[in-house]
Amino acid sequence: MYEKLQSKLYHLKENKIFELFVVLVIIISALEIGAKTFDLSENALSFTGILDILITLFFLFEISVRFIADDDKRNFFKNGWNIFDTLVVAISLIPINDSEMALLARLVRVFRVLRMVSVVPELRVLINSLLKALPQLGYVVLLMFIIFYIYAAIGSFIFKDINPKLWGDIAISMLTLFRIMTFEDWTDIQYETMEVYPYSWIFYLTFIFFTAFAFLNMVIGIVVNVMEEEHAAQRNVNEPSMSELQNEIRELKSLIQKLDKNNLNTL
Amino acid sequence: MYEKLQSKLYHLKENKIFELFVVLVIIISALEIGAKTFDLSENALSFTGILDILITLFFLFEISVRFIADDDKRNFFKNGWNIFDTLVVAISLIPINDSEMALLARLVRVFRVLRMVSVVPELRVLINSLLKALPQLGYVVLLMFIIFYIYAAIGSFIFKDINPKLWGDIAISMLTLFRIMTFEDWTDIQYETMEVYPYSWIFYLTFIFFTAFAFLNMVIGIVVNVMEEEHAAQRNVNEPSMSELQNEIRELKSLIQKLDKNNLNTL
Amino acid sequence: MYEKLQSKLYHLKENKIFELFVVLVIIISALEIGAKTFDLSENALSFTGILDILITLFFLFEISVRFIADDDKRNFFKNGWNIFDTLVVAISLIPINDSEMALLARLVRVFRVLRMVSVVPELRVLINSLLKALPQLGYVVLLMFIIFYIYAAIGSFIFKDINPKLWGDIAISMLTLFRIMTFEDWTDIQYETMEVYPYSWIFYLTFIFFTAFAFLNMVIGIVVNVMEEEHAAQRNVNEPSMSELQNEIRELKSLIQKLDKNNLNTL
Amino acid sequence: MYEKLQSKLYHLKENKIFELFVVLVIIISALEIGAKTFDLSENALSFTGILDILITLFFLFEISVRFIADDDKRNFFKNGWNIFDTLVVAISLIPINDSEMALLARLVRVFRVLRMVSVVPELRVLINSLLKALPQLGYVVLLMFIIFYIYAAIGSFIFKDINPKLWGDIAISMLTLFRIMTFEDWTDIQYETMEVYPYSWIFYLTFIFFTAFAFLNMVIGIVVNVMEEEHAAQRNVNEPSMSELQNEIRELKSLIQKLDKNNLNTL
Repeated sequence: MYEKLQSKLYHLKENKIFELFVVLVIIISALEIGAKTFDLSENALSFTGILDILITLFFLFEISVRFIADDDKRNFFKNGWNIFDTLVVAISLIPINDSEMALLARLVRVFRVLRMVSVVPELRVLINSLLKALPQLGYVVLLMFIIFYIYAAIGSFIFKDINPKLWGDIAISMLTLFRIMTFEDWTDIQYETMEVYPYSWIFYLTFIFFTAFAFLNMVIGIVVNVMEEEHAAQRNVNEPSMSELQNEIRELKSLIQKLDKNNLNTL
Repeated sequence: MYEKLQSKLYHLKENKIFELFVVLVIIISALEIGAKTFDLSENALSFTGILDILITLFFLFEISVRFIADDDKRNFFKNGWNIFDTLVVAISLIPINDSEMALLARLVRVFRVLRMVSVVPELRVLINSLLKALPQLGYVVLLMFIIFYIYAAIGSFIFKDINPKLWGDIAISMLTLFRIMTFEDWTDIQYETMEVYPYSWIFYLTFIFFTAFAFLNMVIGIVVNVMEEEHAAQRNVNEPSMSELQNEIRELKSLIQKLDKNNLNTL
Repeated sequence: MYEKLQSKLYHLKENKIFELFVVLVIIISALEIGAKTFDLSENALSFTGILDILITLFFLFEISVRFIADDDKRNFFKNGWNIFDTLVVAISLIPINDSEMALLARLVRVFRVLRMVSVVPELRVLINSLLKALPQLGYVVLLMFIIFYIYAAIGSFIFKDINPKLWGDIAISMLTLFRIMTFEDWTDIQYETMEVYPYSWIFYLTFIFFTAFAFLNMVIGIVVNVMEEEHAAQRNVNEPSMSELQNEIRELKSLIQKLDKNNLNTL
Repeated sequence: MYEKLQSKLYHLKENKIFELFVVLVIIISALEIGAKTFDLSENALSFTGILDILITLFFLFEISVRFIADDDKRNFFKNGWNIFDTLVVAISLIPINDSEMALLARLVRVFRVLRMVSVVPELRVLINSLLKALPQLGYVVLLMFIIFYIYAAIGSFIFKDINPKLWGDIAISMLTLFRIMTFEDWTDIQYETMEVYPYSWIFYLTFIFFTAFAFLNMVIGIVVNVMEEEHAAQRNVNEPSMSELQNEIRELKSLIQKLDKNNLNTL
């Protein structure tokens, strides 16, 4: 009897209409979250309350269907997307009556929108490929962090007394340096310190050059990665490689040499 | 007799001088629109009024020529550029006396400048290739929209009371987030919320990272698309492919093997 | 006798030390121009005056050497760099006593620094390759201009009364739009018009998207151009093309077929 | 006995755990520097003092180990990284009691964090490849400098009296132009000069175009460099080149021609 249920749920899960309905519920859920940011009337508020419960129940139903329909229950939670979906649903279920917690409850519901990514396969592929590219960029990010850390330490030591709001400690200084990297009113900061230390423009200019350089390197790293994958994909299509051609030509040569020898023998 | 007219108009339409004259009229139309933004004397105003009527009549004449000259009238309106041209001309024809509508009439005339794109073939090719690239970027745009939507919902829930002008509802918040993405005075927004929530810099920094990442991905997507088209174009030039070379070498081999066999038979 | 002089000057012109001396004089000329921007003492001022005359005389001498040393005097002024050098020197020679013209005289001398580009061959190559890439970008620049023109006309029609300093006429509007394209305090402009027209954010966002899109296209256009030149350069190195290989294989085939025929005839 | 010590130290130096310990000490050193930017209690201050001495001693020990373990002591200081490490350690050893020098002492210790780059091989490779790319960009940087210099001279001559803080001399003007290149409040500067010289927007727009153009060129230069290295690396893998294939086909041809000749002789 359980197998019959499982098979039925499997067919439900694979059903195109069911999949579209799941996407639809996620969109409704997103719209409901958006609507809540506006000032709503009493009626609308109670309606969103009911809608909220219905959506939570549907998500619970959907994740159960997927879990039961899965043959290999041990590996169900080895898939990151399944863990993500289950977590989002589970947290939505926690009853929150405390008014202080109301904000938190709202925030958790926002993450439901992220389920769009786990449901639409194309978005899943996109995210996966982004995650795969990250580790290769690791050392450039580390280099950038070292640049930030050193400049934040120097900035904090020298400029602390000029403006503690910007250079108070190494953490605040790193935030200020990020602001400088985005060119956001960075000359105001520069002119302020230049009144005390006229040569402090060297600090800002070298920082901008180093981060721009590291950033450029990062972008090029990604582009080269992508290109290499393209090349590798092209090579694997169906075309023989140069060395395969070379081998074929060499076989030809040995054939002709054999022929030549036979020919001479005939004489 | 109709066929004679059609053939005459077809020759007119294909005439290089006529084409240049159309471009000239569009440029005059653009200059007239530009001139209207300055404070003009009474005389100049009445002159632009007359010019306006002449331009509208010429455009009407030109679109009629193209329509009559076309053999396949059913497919005339299947071409997007033809629909665009006809719409611009048709709207220009509506008589607008109402002073309230005067602004609208002016705006519609501005779109005449866009006719430059439909007349110059190189610009048409450019726009077409841009439009063709769009759908492939669809999923990255969707991902970006999801990031915006989630951050706008969170920002609206948490920061609404701090500054309703920036975070009042999800629509205003998305506009604010677009501003943050362009780095336009984003630290002012950040410092404002950091006074209430000292850790709110996490919100801004993660948003900037995610959107920068998605944007980077979009750019790379376009570059890779363009490259692939280049490669495909190169492959199609005239050069034989590697597998064609392989086939030719294999034919050679079978020829030699046949030769070898014959040779042995001779013995 | 003239030929002797010409040959002597030719050797002088080609002399490495003379070339380095020319670069040195240009650098001194640049430093002198830089020094003049500071408040100088009387002595220093009279010194720069003498230096100025010496530099002008040397440049006159150098361009004369190059002109006389050139065999093909008709084509001397067909080279853009020669025209440029002669112009800079000629304008420097005009005696300017009028105090009003003093600024102009200074400005002309600034362009002497540009002679660095005409003297250092690597910079000349760089500029030439940049100039060669320009016409291919022509249509994207035209498209961008059309976008600017249309938005400037619309902005000027609608927002003129809100802030004539920013939207007074089509020329001022185009400058404002350039500012918006660089994201420079663009939200200030937006918030100002949104108070009158709440939906005017559509104007700014679509403008930013269109220009960003056209700009991206321009960058990709340049990259693809550069790549294609690279590919073409690679192909021309020394490597045979695929079709050359194919021809050689076909020659082989005809050779073998001939051999086969002969062989059969022997029988 | 010395050789025994050397061999022991060599094994220590190559030991993975020792390497990890060195990285750990650098991280502790970095954290200590970061901690000092906060307001610390008396106890914490004396603790960082002791930590400082321990770290200095360990770095001294580590550099000694590496020096003694090295067989080729003459070339030890030909490696830039070794010089860098020794300098950082040596400067840390200078006793600084003077309160004025305290800041300098702190700054020198900040550079210890840079030792991370010299210790982690992957970061070293990254920096080396960046340094290798620099000279190839030299001429674009020179071109950019010439653009800056000319515009700074012009700006300083014309705008000096409008705002000496921004255009006082050529050095200040170059800083202002860098600000304009980052689009940081550049319209404020523009509007200020446009009140006196209404056409001064030409100055700013051409400057932005030229620097953007030169910058674009620089980026493309880097990308093309990277691509070429990729292509070169791919070519060297194991694949035969087109001309190698051509040679093999030609050898075949001569073999067949010989065969053909022999065959005819047989007749």
